Amino acid sequence: MKINGTHYRSLWWDEDQSVLMIIDQRWLPHEFRIQPVATLDEFATAIVEMRVRGAPLIGATAAYGMALAADLDPSDNALKAAWEQLNATRPTAINLRWALNRCMETLTPLPEEDRAKAALKLAHAIADEDVEINRRIGTYGLTLIRDIAAKKPAGEPVRLLTHCNAGWIATVDWGTATSPMYQAHDAGIPIHVWVDETRPRNQGALTAWELGSHGISHSYITDNAGGHLMQHGQVDLVITGTDRTTRQGDVCNKIGTYLKALAAHDNGVPFYVALPSPTIDWTVTDGVAEIPIEDRDSREVSHVQGVLDGGDIGLAQVTPEGTNCGNPAFDVTPNRLVTGLITERGICDASATGLAALFPDLIRKAG
Amino acid sequence: MKINGTHYRSLWWDEDQSVLMIIDQRWLPHEFRIQPVATLDEFATAIVEMRVRGAPLIGATAAYGMALAADLDPSDNALKAAWEQLNATRPTAINLRWALNRCMETLTPLPEEDRAKAALKLAHAIADEDVEINRRIGTYGLTLIRDIAAKKPAGEPVRLLTHCNAGWIATVDWGTATSPMYQAHDAGIPIHVWVDETRPRNQGALTAWELGSHGISHSYITDNAGGHLMQHGQVDLVITGTDRTTRQGDVCNKIGTYLKALAAHDNGVPFYVALPSPTIDWTVTDGVAEIPIEDRDSREVSHVQGVLDGGDIGLAQVTPEGTNCGNPAFDVTPNRLVTGLITERGICDASATGLAALFPDLIRKAG
Repeated sequence: MKINGTHYRSLWWDEDQSVLMIIDQRWLPHEFRIQPVATLDEFATAIVEMRVRGAPLIGATAAYGMALAADLDPSDNALKAAWEQLNATRPTAINLRWALNRCMETLTPLPEEDRAKAALKLAHAIADEDVEINRRIGTYGLTLIRDIAAKKPAGEPVRLLTHCNAGWIATVDWGTATSPMYQAHDAGIPIHVWVDETRPRNQGALTAWELGSHGISHSYITDNAGGHLMQHGQVDLVITGTDRTTRQGDVCNKIGTYLKALAAHDNGVPFYVALPSPTIDWTVTDGVAEIPIEDRDSREVSHVQGVLDGGDIGLAQVTPEGTNCGNPAFDVTPNRLVTGLITERGICDASATGLAALFPDLIRKAG
Repeated sequence: MKINGTHYRSLWWDEDQSVLMIIDQRWLPHEFRIQPVATLDEFATAIVEMRVRGAPLIGATAAYGMALAADLDPSDNALKAAWEQLNATRPTAINLRWALNRCMETLTPLPEEDRAKAALKLAHAIADEDVEINRRIGTYGLTLIRDIAAKKPAGEPVRLLTHCNAGWIATVDWGTATSPMYQAHDAGIPIHVWVDETRPRNQGALTAWELGSHGISHSYITDNAGGHLMQHGQVDLVITGTDRTTRQGDVCNKIGTYLKALAAHDNGVPFYVALPSPTIDWTVTDGVAEIPIEDRDSREVSHVQGVLDGGDIGLAQVTPEGTNCGNPAFDVTPNRLVTGLITERGICDASATGLAALFPDLIRKAG
């Protein structure tokens, strides 16, 4: 999407230097820094430190990581080692493993001398596919927004709420949850977005930055506020992303998503989840019981990053010295709380039958 | 309760200087600053700026404010003006109006020359009553913790979750939600407290500071985390405070409380609210429909206070420059989500009949 009128993707290949360029998201929304990623360790670090983040973007980044690995050493052993290193970076998002496995399946049957070129071609394809998938998610999600707008007095905005950043910088472009918002805005439908700040890492600030850059009306709110807004009829539609979706439509997404789903359910607000099909883990049925949840560093909770008085980016320690902080990074929203899933092939019920109807080929493949 | 072995109340009267001393809570948990409050404007500022905070403490502070007003000018007009100024400081907590009205009812029948002395005596009485009320809340709440502990293997802690700071510094002493925790700990029952950070003002840091000072095991978590913990059986009991309770047992408390009540309900975790009876607004029935919710400054959301690298206390701006932030300060938890109310007269159902059975005298008085 656009930043100050210039179109960007969240990663791109620099042909001249043969390196991947990323937006280092640790400095957003305050500074826009572009960074090359040139070694396998740098790829791993970029994912672990959340310089790149968001399930789809992690997947695409990992594919470029495999392309680099294949260029350095196309042997089976080297590729396997790269797979291991990249797969260990983040435990929850399924797209990471999906992209890595797809690379292995494509490359290992090839002669070693053909692998580097094929790997780069595949990474480009995965990135391009992500853009197209998200564009399609947006066109389907747009129908939901259009339907709500049609029931409102002309000019009254459709009020959406989103959690975390399932925006274009969490993907290669468009975003998942945000794609319907961008398309509604571009179609001239007035919208207003309640942006959950999404503690502990405040990815809501990224969403606010994205939406603001695109000219979409929004308010940044604490994660605590959404229930109150729904009680008072201030939210027409919730759309979030997901890091992993089970075959029965349970949704593992950023910690706190479950609480918003409960509030939406309690107030009759439709709660949709936007997802590209690579986010579906066909091997998992019951998300609460089966999905491992990443526990992250205590300091992410105790220290908050922002712009300090002098203009520097720094940390403020909120808690008393030595306080122990718990930091589970994701939670699972059971399918009973999800109104529907917005995918690149259409909208379906959050259920095994709903997903099976849209993705019979993927289920067959998963066995 | 104790700080480094010394017992404090959260406010006290300095006989020598004839001023009220408070702990300026804006600097907690990082600095412990005691401050005199010597003019009516200072009283109003102390409440507005949340130097003192928490419904019971606001009530007691306002009573001392009326004592100061009566000392300066005991006329009906002056008392009425003081009532107006103090009543306008915070719109949601009912204890404020309760304390101010009690002062007016006591003082206006008296000859003007007797009012100053009576007002100070009343303020002392309100403060002492608050301590005794909270001590009693703790003894009743303790029975809940004891019952859970009895069903666990010896030595396994009872895991409580609390939101905001309904601790001793939100009252004159003991706290409301924390009083059962202090009493359980003092009785040798092992407990662990999940402390919600409570954005936007992070009052969880105050609770962590309190609990840590008293030696109680606790973890500070984001407001997003509680649902996940409940899904995984990590929470035995939720106890929160309340800023206003309706006659049917709806609970208006710090924004986000409603989301925790939904999660507790969804997971079969008992959800109790601790409240002194002055927190009950007998004039209100349906909390969601009737209670005005305070909208506070956008900067409370966009800027986070903490200790910076050099050790100074400062602000970190999290959002992009110019971002509009919504900041509703409270929400209402409907009585259907509340397992019970812990009061100074015992535990009752969160219902009109439950409250009426414990407080027939107050209902009669309210008419």
